Amino acid sequence: MNSVQEQLDLIRKGAFEIISEEELEQKLRRSVEKRQPLTVKVGFDPTAPDLHLGHTVVIRKMKHFQDLGHRVIFVIGDFTGMIGDPSGRSKTRPPLSPGQIAQNAETYKKQMFKILDPEKTIIEFNSRWLGAMSGQDWIRLCAKYTVAAMLKRDEFANRFEDQQPIGIHELLYPLAQAYDSVFLKADFELGGTDQKFNLLVGRDIQREYGIEPQVILTMPILEGLDGVEKMSKSLGNYVGIEEDPENMYGKIMSISDELMFRYYELLTDRGQNEIERMRKGVKSGELHPMGLKQKLAKQIVSDFHGTAAAKSAAEAFARTFQHGEIPKDLQVFDLKGPIALVDVLVKADLAPSRTEARRLIQSGAVLLNRDKIGSVAHDLQVGPTMTQLGRGDFALELVPGEEVTIRRGKLRWARVRITS
Amino acid sequence: MNSVQEQLDLIRKGAFEIISEEELEQKLRRSVEKRQPLTVKVGFDPTAPDLHLGHTVVIRKMKHFQDLGHRVIFVIGDFTGMIGDPSGRSKTRPPLSPGQIAQNAETYKKQMFKILDPEKTIIEFNSRWLGAMSGQDWIRLCAKYTVAAMLKRDEFANRFEDQQPIGIHELLYPLAQAYDSVFLKADFELGGTDQKFNLLVGRDIQREYGIEPQVILTMPILEGLDGVEKMSKSLGNYVGIEEDPENMYGKIMSISDELMFRYYELLTDRGQNEIERMRKGVKSGELHPMGLKQKLAKQIVSDFHGTAAAKSAAEAFARTFQHGEIPKDLQVFDLKGPIALVDVLVKADLAPSRTEARRLIQSGAVLLNRDKIGSVAHDLQVGPTMTQLGRGDFALELVPGEEVTIRRGKLRWARVRITS
Repeated sequence: MNSVQEQLDLIRKGAFEIISEEELEQKLRRSVEKRQPLTVKVGFDPTAPDLHLGHTVVIRKMKHFQDLGHRVIFVIGDFTGMIGDPSGRSKTRPPLSPGQIAQNAETYKKQMFKILDPEKTIIEFNSRWLGAMSGQDWIRLCAKYTVAAMLKRDEFANRFEDQQPIGIHELLYPLAQAYDSVFLKADFELGGTDQKFNLLVGRDIQREYGIEPQVILTMPILEGLDGVEKMSKSLGNYVGIEEDPENMYGKIMSISDELMFRYYELLTDRGQNEIERMRKGVKSGELHPMGLKQKLAKQIVSDFHGTAAAKSAAEAFARTFQHGEIPKDLQVFDLKGPIALVDVLVKADLAPSRTEARRLIQSGAVLLNRDKIGSVAHDLQVGPTMTQLGRGDFALELVPGEEVTIRRGKLRWARVRITS
Repeated sequence: MNSVQEQLDLIRKGAFEIISEEELEQKLRRSVEKRQPLTVKVGFDPTAPDLHLGHTVVIRKMKHFQDLGHRVIFVIGDFTGMIGDPSGRSKTRPPLSPGQIAQNAETYKKQMFKILDPEKTIIEFNSRWLGAMSGQDWIRLCAKYTVAAMLKRDEFANRFEDQQPIGIHELLYPLAQAYDSVFLKADFELGGTDQKFNLLVGRDIQREYGIEPQVILTMPILEGLDGVEKMSKSLGNYVGIEEDPENMYGKIMSISDELMFRYYELLTDRGQNEIERMRKGVKSGELHPMGLKQKLAKQIVSDFHGTAAAKSAAEAFARTFQHGEIPKDLQVFDLKGPIALVDVLVKADLAPSRTEARRLIQSGAVLLNRDKIGSVAHDLQVGPTMTQLGRGDFALELVPGEEVTIRRGKLRWARVRITS
């Protein structure tokens, strides 16, 4: 078993907040003395998972606890999922069937076990205990918390202030999550910073049930590839953990040097000291950031696709980037034409929005069949496939029959076939 | 079956508020047409009942519905009673055992069946359906109402404003009561004016479950013998429905003429028109209020003790009041002396408080062994049993060995024996 200090170093790495540090040390000390592992609980939605690197920040922290010999419980919150939207007002949240939930759990496992050790991961469905609670048990649980305390939660406070309706059932959900911690006698609960309130309710409710309160550990929300916004599918700045190796590698190579250190912190097991040494090495000129970024990209691809795939992704990247080759196995998009180039970029996943696509074209970041497109106003070099329609600077259009390779920046590619 | 108009007259009699009048008429019309009785629901606490006339106001309204041929359901709210104070903070609200609840239900029946027809009264315990609801059912129920709407309830609003804690479970209780109306498909729910909010929640929740909303009918809170404060045990201005006939008769004879009409309205089945005629008769001098009050007292005593007992109570009253006889069978209080007279009055149930006892003595309303006690400052006539201690005007004291008859006003008597 690792010493308390070693454990503290790994647990604190990348953490946004720990409540409380004193209790953390105390639990670890007792665990080491008695040679008893601690119970670490993390809750996940039962809706269809499609994880990106942002989600892995908490999963990796689970792995750290697992590496330290503790008991990690992955709780699938199927109890509320089986209810759907109980107000019946939203048609977009129908109840999930047990079959769907089981299927989503399998998808979770497949994705999470790229990081976690399947042998050491306990999977629980909270319907096991929440579903067994009687109405009276629920009333007793509700009696442990006040309305005013619940309305301090940011989301509730804002809606209450704005006179947006809050269903009474919504007050029960944080209590249900808290009761998970009671039932499992959790020593730790991990979550994103957006989960802080719920995790704190867990502490309060455990106390009410006479159980030592859990230490809560919140992890930061990961920045996306742009280094500014949080990583999110809808912002188009994400790396999905099931993306193919070459895309994943290329996307990571595209991040800034500063973000690279952040990703080392939140997406790898490298110790904080080692990351500090890298940072100093780059600053002093001893280390080249490109080398470190290659290592990071290789490590992350390796986590999700294995070392062989990581190696060939690195080689493909080198060929493309260093020798200007068009990558093999480019994803092909069949799009209906005529279609404006800005739309092509969005549909081929090279830009998150038409506005951003326009900006990229304007800045010269988009190439068609290796030809650079400048702003029309700046001596545009157009390739053979382009028709200028004169509907404004960027009314560049692809017409049926055309087939082009599009490159955005140095690293992102797509092949587009225009059909009628 | 009575006509809609006849039914309306009886139902409206004494009612404080009906929501809504249109729906009331509609339900009655449909009931008459289809010859189908309507379902009338009234809820009661499962705590030990000790009813006074104030409680009978709603029970009598139940009787009116029963007289009109409708289905009256008396719901004992044992579900929450079995939970006690679920926060565990109050030691004064321990959970009631099924045995205690059954016993309280028997006491209720014994008292209520003085007014209601046992054959026609359906008794239900709401644990039958509330206890069968799963946690998911509760969540679905909670989803039907918003926190903001619940916090509009006066009691909650005041506590929320004053930053007094409101347990989340407290929000569930009005929903539970409302669900009773869903389960029973209630057409009406009756209650005191203090129940209005809960009854309205019943309407909302029935609508949410696709059931025609109940009409709610609130009855006024009955004034006590003083005609000012609400009737209540702690204010000493009440008539318990298990009080002996002579006490009951005497207490009712002590009320004001104005209150007499109010009691006719809320405590008897006399029609509103008849009561109006009485009022006019008294005003014009055709009717003597004393006669009407005797009829009222006899009617009420008869309701709870039968006509024979009412007749002899009336006769005993006449002897005492008209011929100055000391009533037979006076209640005897054994009190430890020496004891101040003000305390004697309170302990012998002749005054609700020492302050009030003092005021009664001062005003000359208290007689000891037929001797009037005036204020010491107003030429006090003291009887043989009194010792003046000089600790102030009213330091009148009874000492061990004394035995006195005490009369308060014209009608209230007690015999007191002082022991050491």
